[in-house]
Amino acid sequence: MVESYFLLVPIGSIIALVFAFTQARKVLGYSEGSDIMVKISASIRQGANAYLKRQYRGILLFFAAMFVVLGIMAFAGLLTPFVPFAFITGGFFSGLSGFVGMKIATAANARTAQASSEGLNRGLRVAFSSGTVMGFTVVGLGLLDLSIWFFLLKYVFYTNLAQDPAAQISAISAAMLTFGMGASSMALFARVGGGIFTKAADVGADLVGKVEAGIPEDDPRNPAVIADNVGDVAGMGADLYESYVGSIIATIALSVSAGYNFGGAAVPMLIATVGLLASIAGTFFVRCGENTDQKVLLKALRKGTYISSAIVILLSFPVIYFFLDCARYPDRIGVYAAILSGLIAGVLIGFFTEYFTSDTYKPTQELSGSSLTGPATIIIGGISLGMLSTVMPVLIVGLSVLVSFFASGGVANFSQGLYGVGISAVGMLSTLGITLATDAYGPVADNAGGIAQMSHLPAEVRERTDALDSLGNTTAATGKGFAIGSAALTALALIVAYMDDIRIKAPDFQFDASIVNPPVLIGLFIGSMLPFLFSALTMKAVGRAAQSIVMEVRRQFREITGLMEGTAEADYSTCVDICTRGAQKEMIAPALTGILSPIVVGLILGVNGVVGMLAGATATGFVLAVMMANSGGAWDNAKKYIEAGNHGGKGSEPHKAAVVGDTVGDPFKDTSGPSINILIKLLSMVSIVFAGLILNFSIL
Amino acid sequence: MVESYFLLVPIGSIIALVFAFTQARKVLGYSEGSDIMVKISASIRQGANAYLKRQYRGILLFFAAMFVVLGIMAFAGLLTPFVPFAFITGGFFSGLSGFVGMKIATAANARTAQASSEGLNRGLRVAFSSGTVMGFTVVGLGLLDLSIWFFLLKYVFYTNLAQDPAAQISAISAAMLTFGMGASSMALFARVGGGIFTKAADVGADLVGKVEAGIPEDDPRNPAVIADNVGDVAGMGADLYESYVGSIIATIALSVSAGYNFGGAAVPMLIATVGLLASIAGTFFVRCGENTDQKVLLKALRKGTYISSAIVILLSFPVIYFFLDCARYPDRIGVYAAILSGLIAGVLIGFFTEYFTSDTYKPTQELSGSSLTGPATIIIGGISLGMLSTVMPVLIVGLSVLVSFFASGGVANFSQGLYGVGISAVGMLSTLGITLATDAYGPVADNAGGIAQMSHLPAEVRERTDALDSLGNTTAATGKGFAIGSAALTALALIVAYMDDIRIKAPDFQFDASIVNPPVLIGLFIGSMLPFLFSALTMKAVGRAAQSIVMEVRRQFREITGLMEGTAEADYSTCVDICTRGAQKEMIAPALTGILSPIVVGLILGVNGVVGMLAGATATGFVLAVMMANSGGAWDNAKKYIEAGNHGGKGSEPHKAAVVGDTVGDPFKDTSGPSINILIKLLSMVSIVFAGLILNFSIL
Repeated sequence: MVESYFLLVPIGSIIALVFAFTQARKVLGYSEGSDIMVKISASIRQGANAYLKRQYRGILLFFAAMFVVLGIMAFAGLLTPFVPFAFITGGFFSGLSGFVGMKIATAANARTAQASSEGLNRGLRVAFSSGTVMGFTVVGLGLLDLSIWFFLLKYVFYTNLAQDPAAQISAISAAMLTFGMGASSMALFARVGGGIFTKAADVGADLVGKVEAGIPEDDPRNPAVIADNVGDVAGMGADLYESYVGSIIATIALSVSAGYNFGGAAVPMLIATVGLLASIAGTFFVRCGENTDQKVLLKALRKGTYISSAIVILLSFPVIYFFLDCARYPDRIGVYAAILSGLIAGVLIGFFTEYFTSDTYKPTQELSGSSLTGPATIIIGGISLGMLSTVMPVLIVGLSVLVSFFASGGVANFSQGLYGVGISAVGMLSTLGITLATDAYGPVADNAGGIAQMSHLPAEVRERTDALDSLGNTTAATGKGFAIGSAALTALALIVAYMDDIRIKAPDFQFDASIVNPPVLIGLFIGSMLPFLFSALTMKAVGRAAQSIVMEVRRQFREITGLMEGTAEADYSTCVDICTRGAQKEMIAPALTGILSPIVVGLILGVNGVVGMLAGATATGFVLAVMMANSGGAWDNAKKYIEAGNHGGKGSEPHKAAVVGDTVGDPFKDTSGPSINILIKLLSMVSIVFAGLILNFSIL
Repeated sequence: MVESYFLLVPIGSIIALVFAFTQARKVLGYSEGSDIMVKISASIRQGANAYLKRQYRGILLFFAAMFVVLGIMAFAGLLTPFVPFAFITGGFFSGLSGFVGMKIATAANARTAQASSEGLNRGLRVAFSSGTVMGFTVVGLGLLDLSIWFFLLKYVFYTNLAQDPAAQISAISAAMLTFGMGASSMALFARVGGGIFTKAADVGADLVGKVEAGIPEDDPRNPAVIADNVGDVAGMGADLYESYVGSIIATIALSVSAGYNFGGAAVPMLIATVGLLASIAGTFFVRCGENTDQKVLLKALRKGTYISSAIVILLSFPVIYFFLDCARYPDRIGVYAAILSGLIAGVLIGFFTEYFTSDTYKPTQELSGSSLTGPATIIIGGISLGMLSTVMPVLIVGLSVLVSFFASGGVANFSQGLYGVGISAVGMLSTLGITLATDAYGPVADNAGGIAQMSHLPAEVRERTDALDSLGNTTAATGKGFAIGSAALTALALIVAYMDDIRIKAPDFQFDASIVNPPVLIGLFIGSMLPFLFSALTMKAVGRAAQSIVMEVRRQFREITGLMEGTAEADYSTCVDICTRGAQKEMIAPALTGILSPIVVGLILGVNGVVGMLAGATATGFVLAVMMANSGGAWDNAKKYIEAGNHGGKGSEPHKAAVVGDTVGDPFKDTSGPSINILIKLLSMVSIVFAGLILNFSIL
């Protein structure tokens, strides 16, 4: 029986969680270092806790309200009765992933700095281990949530359909498809809120501290320094949690029309499980010598990912061969090509992100040169660099979709081709455990550098933390590329699953998703506009919150006597509080945009309009997110390139111009860009949940 | 016979051309002012001529090469034999429009400055009259080109089909549909080349003159000042020529499937003719008193447009009633609503552009306030302002499409609905004569201000030219909004006409333009990326060309002794030459992107992929173009708002920050943004011309 193999999924999820737990214990076993390091670290942790507490309290209210709304709708027969509960579990697990990630990241900062004083490899291991905690918590909780609902639906709620596997898997997948909205909403709050928090603190700290008061970055006299060092990994975790779960559910849903039934549903879940085990194996290969050269370090970090990918490539073949019954249907082995194309696409997008944002390559080096003619030219240069960098990711995703569709037999059977597109997203995300570990490593290394600076560690230690920090910048950039690429593929799979779902729900519905059908076309225009609106809202939010921080820091410099002389202490917690409140208040408008757009567009333009909107938002959102992330990353590294002694070095006019570029890039790469990932998935998720409502009540 | 009424179209076009001619004579009858003004004006004219000469020579080469390529393809049976000739005429008339516009604009600069010394109304009349020359040349030549081909095809080439009106109009419209590519290519060169020329000069002049040497704007000692004042109206004229002709041809083509035949083909041509006459009437109402208040002046200029629109609203009703035979088919009168919706959409987009870019409204005032915290915050503020400003234009265009489609009976007959969408574009562009006059007025007033500055006219004259210049900024911004809005509607009409054309060409072709069909989806992604790529190329081009100007200006300051003291003269023509060569060299990559993309995408992804690409490029291009134009406009006016004495005024730190914003905005609003208009139309045009090739040779 195919179904019994599903048990491997919860087993895998438990393994992942246990692994995360042991890694966490390992990290916590390291020393936090000197008294001053302990103290700074405690302040950061306190700030993070204050943020998390207030943030989660607000989100709890939202989830309670949504639970009631969804409950009423379910009661009225507009939704399946599981939706309100699934909404809660999705949100809970996604939120928990972020929470654990934040906890471990704030615990690992000082430990990484301290470990670096004992050796580069030791520092790398601590930071990377803290990343694996996050990575495997996300993966483990994601698969756990999926397993729980899968078994509940199959063995408790839909036992009446047990005689007819096709009908049962259809009912299960239709129900599960609505589950992503909880995770999506949580991810939105985490990404947007976190993005506003950290960038408001960063911009605010820089504007008053560096520019007005002339004190260096990460100076303990700056009241916003702690808020700046809280960092944000919760958003990243919640974002990728959602892509991970979303791509698997969408593929399960698509397996029904493809005619694969339980075998087809098993494949994404088992590929994910295989990927998880491969990722664990990969982590053991991440180690380095004492050479601080970036290329050597990057190679060390990448080795783990490549080994994991290789294992997935090996093991996914038998999974597909067996579960898609390729002995009987040899054509189906083409689905294997879909997995490969997804995995390779993820690696390639990461490479091109690195090419455009790392100062070891020409684009960023040239960008730093454009600082010689002032801030205006570096801004123009950075924006055109970001725009140019969208070409390859679009072609890579396009090629990956094409290969997946045709290799999976899309010509003979359209639905099987679409299943292949879903599987390629699962393939890309299969090694998420280790990819996310590499990604989450970045902020930890960054803040370790901050702590080393604040606690005046010796020069050789700073050299090591700087090397780790630089490496973190690169992995953060490639991680963003991966997050955007996987979000786009996931969103595509969700759009397709949505249309499939409508066909099952309302077989009589006249679908006309042709691009020249006016509702589709208008939906497309609106969809293309939404990422711009969303970015505008999030950037303005950062601006306003940063403005409040500027006022507060100025006030403290003015009112706290002895602060500048180092005899009195800054009031860090007020800054943290302002950032938190700002983040919470400013989250509302973007969240409403994401949740209400599909409903309003749907009620006016109908299902066809929604499909147009989703496609437009995904295509434009993908391009805009890549552009914003890469412009921001390139500005950041162009500044670092100058600080390394090029074009006049620190304090020169070109450096000042580069700082302007970096400041513009901050909300680009850390708030608006990554938030768009969530937007495009959330729009699909909301559309799926409210499909029944739209079918019944739309005007067109 | 309906056909005899077509004669009204060439008659109207002759009236427009005669009117343009009398207006030109009127402008040339004014005095150019003092000796120094004559001299400056002559230098500018000389620069413009040098630019035009070299530019047109290069373009001639391109057209000759394309003529050969298209000729070979026509010979091989891949194109109708008219295409190569139509390509040439379209390019010729479009180029002629731009040429006349440039000639009159450079002749009117000094005359406007001189007339302003005799009174504000006199200055306004001269500048506006020069704008009408451009406006009515575009409209007149456009309708002339259409008429010539229409009559040639009907009474010379397709007389064999005279017995079957449906077959005849179908053959005529299919042939005419391929004609836009010549105008499109010409427009591309004009917009992109012109945009690079003026902005390279502008940025180069500012960077060395204002920033390094500390001399004021428009100072005759600056060697780039003449190139900076050449301005660019050729691009604007060619752009709108193409929208005008494109929307009419697309609607004619759509009249076949809609079942309207010659009546349906007559409507767009006659509405355009009515609009032309209405526009001439409107021009007589443009006059002002001696009050320099912007709102009063704007009202004076708008009065003409509103009166023209009112006349079109009145007269288009009988046109539709009679030619669509509404006595027999009363439902068809709904097409009238499509015209109204197009006209109103044009006015509304103009209003919202003004709202977001004029410093009499809150958004730009707030933006100028964000200069208080430095260049980074004004850049972030301007980008988010531009992004936010995309919401209303998208909703307006969407609503206009919706109203047009449904009012024209799209539910009962899909093709009739699409005909309505085409007609709404024609409606929006019907008053182009006067709208373009208002738009082309801007650069003339701007350069009149420059001449007044350079020739040290008395304060009261400067006050008047400043008022006219400010007004010109507003009309330039709203003109850009109108150009983008009409380009989007025209592109939509062209996409629809393209699909219609394919259906006629290859009735067996299996169309699947559904958004989830992978080739469509991938096409959509590529289409969404193209405007970003195109903007990156054009911005980088400006950057490189500006860099050469910087070098040259520095060289002249260094090597020409006595230049700074005013005893020696700058070598203006070298700067003009560098700009021209830069523009020409840098035009190639964007042009190839526009021309090759549909062919490459088509050959790989097939017709469905092309449709996806066109839709993606139109939707994303529209949004991106609005954003770039409005960000740029707002930065420009935020700087002006500070210069008017707010936030510390000229020379203050906020002013310096605002200058950075303005410099970033220059290529946004004057190069990349407007070039996207052309891109989205050119992509459709190329797709239409190469439809046969793609149908026969595509892989998918």
